[in-house]
Amino acid sequence: MINVIGIGPNRENITLSALEALKNADVVIGYKKYIESVEDLLEGKKIIKKGMGDEIARGELAISKSFEGKNVALISSGDPGVFGMANLMFQLIGKYDDIEINVYPGVSAVNYSASLLGAPLHDFCAISLSDILTPIGEIEKKIEYAAKANFIIVIYNPISKTRKEPFRKFKKILLEVKGSDTLIGIVDSSQKSVKTKIVTLDKLDEDEINMSTTLIVGNSLSYVENDYLITSRGYVVKSSIHPLANEFYNNYLNGETATGSNKDCEYYPCHNDLQCCDFCFCPFYPCGDSSTGGKWIKSKKVWSCEDCSWIHEKSTVKCIKNSLKDILKEVDDLKSNKKELLKLRRACILK
Amino acid sequence: MINVIGIGPNRENITLSALEALKNADVVIGYKKYIESVEDLLEGKKIIKKGMGDEIARGELAISKSFEGKNVALISSGDPGVFGMANLMFQLIGKYDDIEINVYPGVSAVNYSASLLGAPLHDFCAISLSDILTPIGEIEKKIEYAAKANFIIVIYNPISKTRKEPFRKFKKILLEVKGSDTLIGIVDSSQKSVKTKIVTLDKLDEDEINMSTTLIVGNSLSYVENDYLITSRGYVVKSSIHPLANEFYNNYLNGETATGSNKDCEYYPCHNDLQCCDFCFCPFYPCGDSSTGGKWIKSKKVWSCEDCSWIHEKSTVKCIKNSLKDILKEVDDLKSNKKELLKLRRACILK
Repeated sequence: MINVIGIGPNRENITLSALEALKNADVVIGYKKYIESVEDLLEGKKIIKKGMGDEIARGELAISKSFEGKNVALISSGDPGVFGMANLMFQLIGKYDDIEINVYPGVSAVNYSASLLGAPLHDFCAISLSDILTPIGEIEKKIEYAAKANFIIVIYNPISKTRKEPFRKFKKILLEVKGSDTLIGIVDSSQKSVKTKIVTLDKLDEDEINMSTTLIVGNSLSYVENDYLITSRGYVVKSSIHPLANEFYNNYLNGETATGSNKDCEYYPCHNDLQCCDFCFCPFYPCGDSSTGGKWIKSKKVWSCEDCSWIHEKSTVKCIKNSLKDILKEVDDLKSNKKELLKLRRACILK
Repeated sequence: MINVIGIGPNRENITLSALEALKNADVVIGYKKYIESVEDLLEGKKIIKKGMGDEIARGELAISKSFEGKNVALISSGDPGVFGMANLMFQLIGKYDDIEINVYPGVSAVNYSASLLGAPLHDFCAISLSDILTPIGEIEKKIEYAAKANFIIVIYNPISKTRKEPFRKFKKILLEVKGSDTLIGIVDSSQKSVKTKIVTLDKLDEDEINMSTTLIVGNSLSYVENDYLITSRGYVVKSSIHPLANEFYNNYLNGETATGSNKDCEYYPCHNDLQCCDFCFCPFYPCGDSSTGGKWIKSKKVWSCEDCSWIHEKSTVKCIKNSLKDILKEVDDLKSNKKELLKLRRACILK
């Protein structure tokens, strides 16, 4: 029997299942560095350490030990199903009859890295930049489509000493599709103490990336707060409707509010770069989403839009007006229809 | 302090870190079903079980208990970073000063489901079909782009009793972009014993899908063998060059082999639907990839191409001839340049 065992990113994050499977093994096979991280658990077992890049030899050895009747543990770091040993083993055993094989899942680099960076994930893609057996054109296409669809993008195997071209292409495509201010979380596990850093794409330096780095590229709703990389997923902030907002939306629904910039208003311009006053009060207030510049005034527990002028941009107003009439039929809908409002907001941000 | 703890897909797949964090907690908060799965570990702790969909209340409660000086464990199933409690918590604590928060990653549904199905993953996208706070247009675009870029697609939250439309759209888009023979792995965790099934897209039945189902959609290199869903990642099968292949490629490199269908050959047609004999012997032999129909003859340990006619299709020949001259300059390159050959093969399959 062959157990392909994911030991996770480090000793602390191994699962109980994986521990149990290691305990029951007769023979343990793996890349030297991974074996050493769990070696104290392997007393009395036959241990076979192999070099990096020797995956096929490791797999064939596991098969031959299994035919000797041994219970074999084949160790993979992270999750063996994610760019690990699982696919290779299933392809290799296709050659033989009657090999029992089990995969033990582990915490993969995407989950571990995300946990250290904060909460960067939402819908995401995981892409390996290794072009050893994958055409570079395929990798480029995946990066491009993932960026265009606004996925969070998680990069495995970003670079090696001899393989830098895919990383450069990755950076170039992101610059073209997403722009230089795209947020990138960097998690470097090459040293004993793992290092994290958050940069914008224009500051992403090839010399800081190595084989043990995982990158997490934010989407349009990602932001940084207290050194954490966070992607807004939207949630409904409890609130009441301010009397002035109530008055404004009564007038709005009667078609009695200004369009474009209202220079006659005594508060004009109440925002920097004010283009449109159509939504003098934001219909999504409070959105609780810092990605467009809003933030909590902590002392008062009040949501501040001072640094967000998104609702006053021409393109925003146009996008919202198209759909708002179906969602906001009376002022109370600002509260009762908040989920639909937040979806409309999201749709207009991503447009 | 608030610890957002991923307990994985089930009790056996919890990590040591998560266990330790649970042990150190004063108060444990979570959705009823998740708490119950680890309740025996929680003796002596204050346990607060909440209903489904009550995420904000759970998060606010964790914050208030933390302000009381408690060490709070907030439980998430799977990985809290993947459609779990992490994003929400980071958004919620933006309102307050000085809350210490840690995320404990877990084995997510993608890793667990993949391990039960075999080895279906390569570059993949994870998409939630919940349109409660995400516009359906955004979800549709992500499915479309993920399908067009040939990602493995992992679907979270595919359906609920009142939310079936996103699933129907998902199926429709896949049919249009990928075709009815696309392989889909289904992992249903709604019962105590988890059920898996592999179907083609045209057999994907809405009535077999529920809130606790994870779907894994294969790519162009996925295949089924012994009830496992496997995605070829390519590897180099050890082999020697057959004397007849040696002779053929000597002639090929001298421009002395046939193009198109060679009806004068005594073996014609040696394959069903034979269009082109340009590569009488496949330059990629043995590819070890069952996704185009090849397989091992187990008794002889020989790779059989009997059921693969891909190399004899017009479009294949055209794609390969474009690039082969740069990779195959002498017959020995069939062995020494095998990685580049397998990349060319992959590029032409995905074209």
